[in-house]
Amino acid sequence: MQIKNILVAGEYKELFQNQLLTEDSQNFRFIPVDEITIEDLTWACAYVGFKPCPDFNLTNLKWVHSFNAGVNNYLELEGWEENDVLLTRTICSFGERISEYCLSYILKDLQFHTYFEAKQKEKKWAQKTPKMVKDQTFVIFGTGEIGQAVAKTFNQFGATVYGVSQSGKQKSYFKSVVKTDVANSLVECADWVISTLPLTTETEQLFNHELFSHFNGAAFINVGRGATVDETALIEGLNSGKIRYAVLDVLSTEPLAETSSLWRRNDLVITPHISAVTDLNEAISCFHDTLRKIETNEPLLNKVTIHKGY
Amino acid sequence: MQIKNILVAGEYKELFQNQLLTEDSQNFRFIPVDEITIEDLTWACAYVGFKPCPDFNLTNLKWVHSFNAGVNNYLELEGWEENDVLLTRTICSFGERISEYCLSYILKDLQFHTYFEAKQKEKKWAQKTPKMVKDQTFVIFGTGEIGQAVAKTFNQFGATVYGVSQSGKQKSYFKSVVKTDVANSLVECADWVISTLPLTTETEQLFNHELFSHFNGAAFINVGRGATVDETALIEGLNSGKIRYAVLDVLSTEPLAETSSLWRRNDLVITPHISAVTDLNEAISCFHDTLRKIETNEPLLNKVTIHKGY
Repeated sequence: MQIKNILVAGEYKELFQNQLLTEDSQNFRFIPVDEITIEDLTWACAYVGFKPCPDFNLTNLKWVHSFNAGVNNYLELEGWEENDVLLTRTICSFGERISEYCLSYILKDLQFHTYFEAKQKEKKWAQKTPKMVKDQTFVIFGTGEIGQAVAKTFNQFGATVYGVSQSGKQKSYFKSVVKTDVANSLVECADWVISTLPLTTETEQLFNHELFSHFNGAAFINVGRGATVDETALIEGLNSGKIRYAVLDVLSTEPLAETSSLWRRNDLVITPHISAVTDLNEAISCFHDTLRKIETNEPLLNKVTIHKGY
Repeated sequence: MQIKNILVAGEYKELFQNQLLTEDSQNFRFIPVDEITIEDLTWACAYVGFKPCPDFNLTNLKWVHSFNAGVNNYLELEGWEENDVLLTRTICSFGERISEYCLSYILKDLQFHTYFEAKQKEKKWAQKTPKMVKDQTFVIFGTGEIGQAVAKTFNQFGATVYGVSQSGKQKSYFKSVVKTDVANSLVECADWVISTLPLTTETEQLFNHELFSHFNGAAFINVGRGATVDETALIEGLNSGKIRYAVLDVLSTEPLAETSSLWRRNDLVITPHISAVTDLNEAISCFHDTLRKIETNEPLLNKVTIHKGY
């Protein structure tokens, strides 16, 4: 496929040019997302950015490249399959970033940081033996790029790692992968349940009363999308002790309102969607790599399957 | 070498018997360390325990096995070489334990736990991009079992890891290993300096004014022995900013006195010597493994070289 006119939503000209190869033959427009006009969209055959612009229109486009890993904001728009528009997403160090984020909160817990911090304040030398990652059982929802990177990390520490996915297809770094509808028995024996799920019609509010009722004191980490969790059910799970502790980097509404009761809990860590921040240089490099593969008809690892949503 | 009578300092009979093989032909005595008599020591040809008993005497012993990784408490006694007594130490999951301890405090820092905790208290959604382990430069003092395990862990995250040792001998998982007397230039470019050093005459107060003066804002973690650090120099290094942050699991006097000013600093984490707690079952399994190798004259990986001190 040949791509001629590329519309980039954002003033990234300099960053793009730093990485541009001399043989690149495309025309670029760099325009802040809110200033993009119908004329720009008509001119472009490719659109690149974090989110669709206002009055976004697919009909003239051949290709849309998202600077995020999750593409639910683009998929809210209709017409991808009818107009045969290619949608690709950014894959860069998200897997490593999310692994380090998860591991930081797991080790904080296993190494009793909060306990030792309190003892230091009291000036008390009070020993307590940290737990080891190898003795933990993890259940990871989502076995794609990111889920696999997280599984690989825990594997390196000798932990037991199970996966849950729509297909139940076996993947590297998981002891086994099961389908979502039979995940209950795995969740029952988990020390940690981690969601890396994208937001799709299948995953919306997947973590509901029913699923949380099978937790046996596991900790829950969400690094996928906030709307996959029924937050009322999560709070009830924490209150009943079914969920021991939760770490949420994503929430159903972002930014989380100052009035939310979620901020105040000691058994709940909230971070502002920072576990997989896009590094612009990495994202632009991923864009260039994707562009090159499109032009030479090479297979694309970051192509979104529209009906699946990822 | 044949071992007949084994004196174990501690009431571990049940734990030992759980692991004892039927063909084991030794006689055992299990006696609390403070109740061991001269007669017990005369009877024994091997002594096993965390520390020497009062009135400890090497002259009748063939073998002493320490339940710790560090053996400075045994080496304070004289006569090892004169009496040709074999000293072995426990090697079990200390390397993994210490790696997880270090990583927990490194990730706490790189993932800005303190910042996000404060923002959560203020109910503020305030993004900040975490740093990645791969972009950090580590300098690890001590390249033995434990130092190598720590280096291996950071390597798995793609970090740059240098080693410092007495010999400067190259070891796996280190980009390079240099001798102690030329460590300054490495320390100058380090983000993290980690000491896994044992306490010997060479390492006592190795981390002094001179060495800390070469820190360029590196964080310092001590999981070796407290007396390798001049704590006054450490405080001055923190005050001047040469040392950005310190995590001490070991101190020159343990337990740390309630009156110590070290407890109160925000740039200093104190934990009560818990980074490598001996798991008794593992330690006993290491003892049995060592006993078997002694009887069959196999090479011992955990034999202490007396004049080196480790």
